Amino acid sequence: MLISTITRVIRFDLWHIPMLATTTESENAPVILAGVMMSLVVIYLASTIGAEICARINLPPVLGQLLGGLVVGISAFHLLVFPDGGGDSSNSLMMNFLQTTAGLSTDGAASAFQIESEVISTLAEIGVVILLFEIGLESNLKELLEVGTQSAIVAVVGVAAPFIGGTLGLILLFHVATIPAIFAGAALTATSIGITAKVLAELQHLNSKEGQIIIGAAVLDDILGIIVLAVVAGLAKTGEVELTNILYLIVSAVAFLVGSILIGRWFNPYFVKIVTELKTRGQLLIPALIFAFILSYIATVIKLEAILGAFTAGIVLAETHKCRELKNQIVPIADILVPIFFVVVSAKTNISVLNPMIPENREGLIMASFLILVAILGKVITGFTVFGQADINRLAIGVGMIPRGEVGLVFAGIGSASGILPSSLDAAIIVMVILTTFVAPPLLSLVFREPATVSVQAKESR
Amino acid sequence: MLISTITRVIRFDLWHIPMLATTTESENAPVILAGVMMSLVVIYLASTIGAEICARINLPPVLGQLLGGLVVGISAFHLLVFPDGGGDSSNSLMMNFLQTTAGLSTDGAASAFQIESEVISTLAEIGVVILLFEIGLESNLKELLEVGTQSAIVAVVGVAAPFIGGTLGLILLFHVATIPAIFAGAALTATSIGITAKVLAELQHLNSKEGQIIIGAAVLDDILGIIVLAVVAGLAKTGEVELTNILYLIVSAVAFLVGSILIGRWFNPYFVKIVTELKTRGQLLIPALIFAFILSYIATVIKLEAILGAFTAGIVLAETHKCRELKNQIVPIADILVPIFFVVVSAKTNISVLNPMIPENREGLIMASFLILVAILGKVITGFTVFGQADINRLAIGVGMIPRGEVGLVFAGIGSASGILPSSLDAAIIVMVILTTFVAPPLLSLVFREPATVSVQAKESR
Repeated sequence: MLISTITRVIRFDLWHIPMLATTTESENAPVILAGVMMSLVVIYLASTIGAEICARINLPPVLGQLLGGLVVGISAFHLLVFPDGGGDSSNSLMMNFLQTTAGLSTDGAASAFQIESEVISTLAEIGVVILLFEIGLESNLKELLEVGTQSAIVAVVGVAAPFIGGTLGLILLFHVATIPAIFAGAALTATSIGITAKVLAELQHLNSKEGQIIIGAAVLDDILGIIVLAVVAGLAKTGEVELTNILYLIVSAVAFLVGSILIGRWFNPYFVKIVTELKTRGQLLIPALIFAFILSYIATVIKLEAILGAFTAGIVLAETHKCRELKNQIVPIADILVPIFFVVVSAKTNISVLNPMIPENREGLIMASFLILVAILGKVITGFTVFGQADINRLAIGVGMIPRGEVGLVFAGIGSASGILPSSLDAAIIVMVILTTFVAPPLLSLVFREPATVSVQAKESR
Repeated sequence: MLISTITRVIRFDLWHIPMLATTTESENAPVILAGVMMSLVVIYLASTIGAEICARINLPPVLGQLLGGLVVGISAFHLLVFPDGGGDSSNSLMMNFLQTTAGLSTDGAASAFQIESEVISTLAEIGVVILLFEIGLESNLKELLEVGTQSAIVAVVGVAAPFIGGTLGLILLFHVATIPAIFAGAALTATSIGITAKVLAELQHLNSKEGQIIIGAAVLDDILGIIVLAVVAGLAKTGEVELTNILYLIVSAVAFLVGSILIGRWFNPYFVKIVTELKTRGQLLIPALIFAFILSYIATVIKLEAILGAFTAGIVLAETHKCRELKNQIVPIADILVPIFFVVVSAKTNISVLNPMIPENREGLIMASFLILVAILGKVITGFTVFGQADINRLAIGVGMIPRGEVGLVFAGIGSASGILPSSLDAAIIVMVILTTFVAPPLLSLVFREPATVSVQAKESR
């Protein structure tokens, strides 16, 4: 309000008093708040309409949110475009709208676009942090550890199989050079923990044995993915693997996960004590978020993902008896923040590479077909490596690992930025990511068609 | 996650692959997310510790949040500073912290500081939008209209008395020139609806007759303040009042308030119908927020405050039978967003102007004492203009209008930007704003010591 009023007034003054022209940097601030709110309206409309349509045809709502993002994003209506998705203020329909309705100046549009994009992107990232915190709260550490070996095998096979299959296939079948082939192979290893976890939650399968194996494997996969990236980056530069870097990543990841859980056990009684002592509003939520944000920060500092920190914080706090109350309070927050993430991820995705009418897309599409095959098979087989578990839906585990989502897009982004990848291979990776991401939610709901025995229990305990 | 991973990887690559150096604009993105999360940790610690201390000594928690903001802000520890509060990346302790721990580069610090400040400022503004939406939901349109005449009188007297008293006093007693005196007089007219409403809610007095009169008057005061600003800006430029501009503001404000409420009545059944039809998560919250954000946007476009739109949306939806459920879901969201607003407002306030040891502050402090006197008396008398209400706490109504808060700071900000005000008068306005803001919450809790009869009912209905 402060800024908005200051700058509205300054805008008034700019019409009247020329000497105030020095304060232009905040000239558009009320318009920025207004723009952020209208962007949120667009995001909420896209996510809700998409989710509702999918829910009605028995598809996971998150697929609808992703499709909604495509509709409003860079691929179609340009209502929501971002600098890092190929947008700028001149092709942003939202900026045009603000210029027409809210008095945004053409000069101010470029900086307003930058700021607004940063704000919405940050909200989206906080959204996925909250999602993983919520998933952590819904998880059960004991059950996760019980299936830990299975998760680890699924994760390792799910990284190794598509990596080896993809790299060799590209070299042998498509005669791609070694370095770009390794790069594309690495892009096949990712698993989008966000999309998988959301679909599992929607199918009420988060707490089934399959769900726990998938979540554990997806978390480990995220760590493995970071290691693979470091290896590939080293290879691309010097042609050899930088062992110290890799070792540092492995040691810090293990230390972080184990350390957080051990310290968390010691910390939990104090957490409950503090929460019980507090008298003002937010007495449970605020300490919980402080804990989650600090762990996310530490995870970022040691070069892991912020979402790993949030997930760990959730698992730790799930063991306190405040857990259910906390879950209930996190729900509305997740309801308004998580859709931002899914809509923004796909709003940034340009699906024009999928158009076979454009000749230069065709070579990429053929390679993409191969990559998609490897991407799906390489993950589906992981379910069949699970041992010692009778009556388990092996297909579901494999299918749960399929979506590459935003993690896969990262590789494509680096690929096009670095010039390592020929453009056809770059496009092929993007197509593979889009297809695996959009195909996984309906496939998962298909293979999970008969409800799991445990999920009923989970539903009741919500 | 997308951006954070891309840029972490790019950071890796920047160590290894020089050709990736073109992507520096997003180089620091994971650090920005980390910085935003750490800023939120600082905000939450400051607000919670401050609020808890105040709650224990029977002062309104919001006073503690404001004091917490002073401690972490530009006035003391510099953990949370903003470009528009006189901070920059070199004197931000948070930026130093990120450079030391999270590998933020010195070059990147300036832009990271800008982006992070914008994100936190926007979150703060969304926080006050949510606060006013929540206050709207807690309000009762019928009761607000019943005391409408009283509210209008309180608002008009509360604008006219301090304006006339301040302007004449400065001219006659301090020999200030007419234009700056009018400007300072205008700065005395504001009422901080945010602080007043929060204190009333904390004292369980939002639904008492006094509370309803204060809220109504504060809303009208906000509109009157905008009109006063337009008048003063016109006077400062041409020496005369621009009638068309003023008329436009009055007509659009009235049209907006009346129009929203009438259209809202027609819209409410559809809202309930839509909400009942939706099946996916957030089915009540998301449509409610879409409505609130659209009204806030319209309010901004017609040059009113976004918070007026949010308040109106709250009043409209308060009339549906979904209101209680919606209130319950808004609570956790307000819990995490509203503290950001109060901490940020006072983190941006530099209280060094209060130091009498600095000689150049003294002239300002003498004028400030006069302004404070007028500011308090000019609002306190408003309670005694209320007619036709027996058994009403007249003192409480007047005291409720005292805090100038962020609205008052706006005038000071414009004053120092425009050069209209001599620096001593500029400092005096800031001192007046700080004092009235910090003195109002404890005064209010003092004058409301005996609980109102209606507030018990209100407490039960929560």
